Amino acid sequence: MSADVLNDRESNAKRAKLSENSNEALDLRSQQEEEVTIHRKADLNLSAIKFVRILNDSPLNKSVFVEGLYNGEKVVIIFEKTPFSEASVKQLLERGDNSLKQHFHNDIYGDYTTFPNPELNGLKTTIIHPATEKHIEKYSAQQLFLIEESAEDYANITLPYIESTPLSIDWVYNILEHKSETDRIIFEDPDPELGFILLPDLKWNGQQTNDLYLVAICHKRNIKSLRDLNQQHLPLLRNIQKKGTEAISKKYDLKPSELRIYVHYQPSFYHLHIHFTALFDAPGSRVERAHLLSTIINNIELYGDYYQKSRLTFAVRKNDALFAKFEELKKFDT
Amino acid sequence: MSADVLNDRESNAKRAKLSENSNEALDLRSQQEEEVTIHRKADLNLSAIKFVRILNDSPLNKSVFVEGLYNGEKVVIIFEKTPFSEASVKQLLERGDNSLKQHFHNDIYGDYTTFPNPELNGLKTTIIHPATEKHIEKYSAQQLFLIEESAEDYANITLPYIESTPLSIDWVYNILEHKSETDRIIFEDPDPELGFILLPDLKWNGQQTNDLYLVAICHKRNIKSLRDLNQQHLPLLRNIQKKGTEAISKKYDLKPSELRIYVHYQPSFYHLHIHFTALFDAPGSRVERAHLLSTIINNIELYGDYYQKSRLTFAVRKNDALFAKFEELKKFDT
Repeated sequence: MSADVLNDRESNAKRAKLSENSNEALDLRSQQEEEVTIHRKADLNLSAIKFVRILNDSPLNKSVFVEGLYNGEKVVIIFEKTPFSEASVKQLLERGDNSLKQHFHNDIYGDYTTFPNPELNGLKTTIIHPATEKHIEKYSAQQLFLIEESAEDYANITLPYIESTPLSIDWVYNILEHKSETDRIIFEDPDPELGFILLPDLKWNGQQTNDLYLVAICHKRNIKSLRDLNQQHLPLLRNIQKKGTEAISKKYDLKPSELRIYVHYQPSFYHLHIHFTALFDAPGSRVERAHLLSTIINNIELYGDYYQKSRLTFAVRKNDALFAKFEELKKFDT
Repeated sequence: MSADVLNDRESNAKRAKLSENSNEALDLRSQQEEEVTIHRKADLNLSAIKFVRILNDSPLNKSVFVEGLYNGEKVVIIFEKTPFSEASVKQLLERGDNSLKQHFHNDIYGDYTTFPNPELNGLKTTIIHPATEKHIEKYSAQQLFLIEESAEDYANITLPYIESTPLSIDWVYNILEHKSETDRIIFEDPDPELGFILLPDLKWNGQQTNDLYLVAICHKRNIKSLRDLNQQHLPLLRNIQKKGTEAISKKYDLKPSELRIYVHYQPSFYHLHIHFTALFDAPGSRVERAHLLSTIINNIELYGDYYQKSRLTFAVRKNDALFAKFEELKKFDT
């Protein structure tokens, strides 16, 4: 199972939108947030969460998605082991208190387990509470399919689907309005037409640049996705490309040629945002989901209506509402 | 560091060349093993090994390759974090002695670090001692950069580079002429203009379809890469798309929507070939190297000279000859 389409908090919001009583659910969540959300509990211990089941896991990434219960409510926990840094490796070698166990050796090769001190070996932990059935569904393993979407398919299937789903991307507006995560902002250009906020993606722990992952969220609010982009957006796209790379170069000492800059189609939420990652195997950077900003600018410069005319191929999970729409409205080869 | 450009049969051949003097080195190692190898030391502690440098690391896999010194001799250490199991997750939740630190929360999402007890969070550790220069080279990273190649760059830099490099793709012609790997052919259309041979890629063991990986090599010999493709090639591309997916559906029971079909730019050899993979995290399927066949056909249908006019972004390793050419002939931001 590809991790490419699994790992975004954005999708949670999108899926929450699909829930039948979404307004009610949202009200309920806000109320609960004030009162009983796990995130406000002092001295939270994991033993307060009851294990229910493994939803999915990625042995390659060393991550696991877990369903749990907290005070009778659903919780999703994502554990992910963290990458090494030079500093953490140096400490592993220099501190004499890490125990080492040999399993076998053969000629020059020896196989061991090291048991580092906890502070050298933390687990990145994301907790979603209260979680809905949609969150559980999102993080469960699901088969993927590719859909080739024509301009007509977009008009007849995808766009009505997007417009019929009540928006619930408050967390995006919280960021844009400086109500949340203000201290996480790396760079902001406040211009309402060309501006954006750049901040670390939740998938990145911010410690080492070899898996750097930032997201630029544009201030302009009416751009749903790649499909909306045309010549009038070139100044915005070029501004994000230029100022985003400058900010990253200044803060993290990575040059533009050391960055993969791209958007997703389908995105996990329909407000234009651009991913900036180091050249590691980032989730969502495969060809069926990622579109390089350099390619987007090239395409629009050459052909202003490229994204209105083109067929675009993307991956959907079998349980996605959009997959069901394509199956329902169009002869589809699955 | 991305594995995407490291994993091809070409590279294997290159690596094999590096081990020409390995017999001599092996004799030496056996002798040393009897005497001073680290693996025979009782109560080995990592602090006995002096840190020299990080050779390579994989943030995706959470692994790192380290050069060290032990008694004045070179050591390579490979640390790799281990996947989660249901048992380890249950213990993480059930044991009350794992500390948890909150970094921030926003609505229902909270970001934490868990510090598990060491015995729940061991590191797989491989130690190679004594290590030779060949080991150091084998485990060293080569930095990747993205290059945005304009039509002029292609004409002035890339094309002369391709044409000046002595071709050594006899193995491709051996396949096309039925001199090698004949028994591996899954499907052949022998037409000299539209035809191709479909066979498993070396990276696939042919056993299970969740990591299916096949390659279609076209019979026509004058198509170097994506840059050469135009309207006259649409029949060839559509033929490979149609007959390739039919053959895979028949033999492996995977539908077209369960396949990622793409070419590489830059390719690892300059004779048109098309990758067919299942929707797993295949090496070389990231956006900076892979171009979906569906997108290529779309682009050429809409704009016949798309690949002659466009800027194309691709990844190169620092030691690649093509990287050197771009550095030499063009102002480059590294």
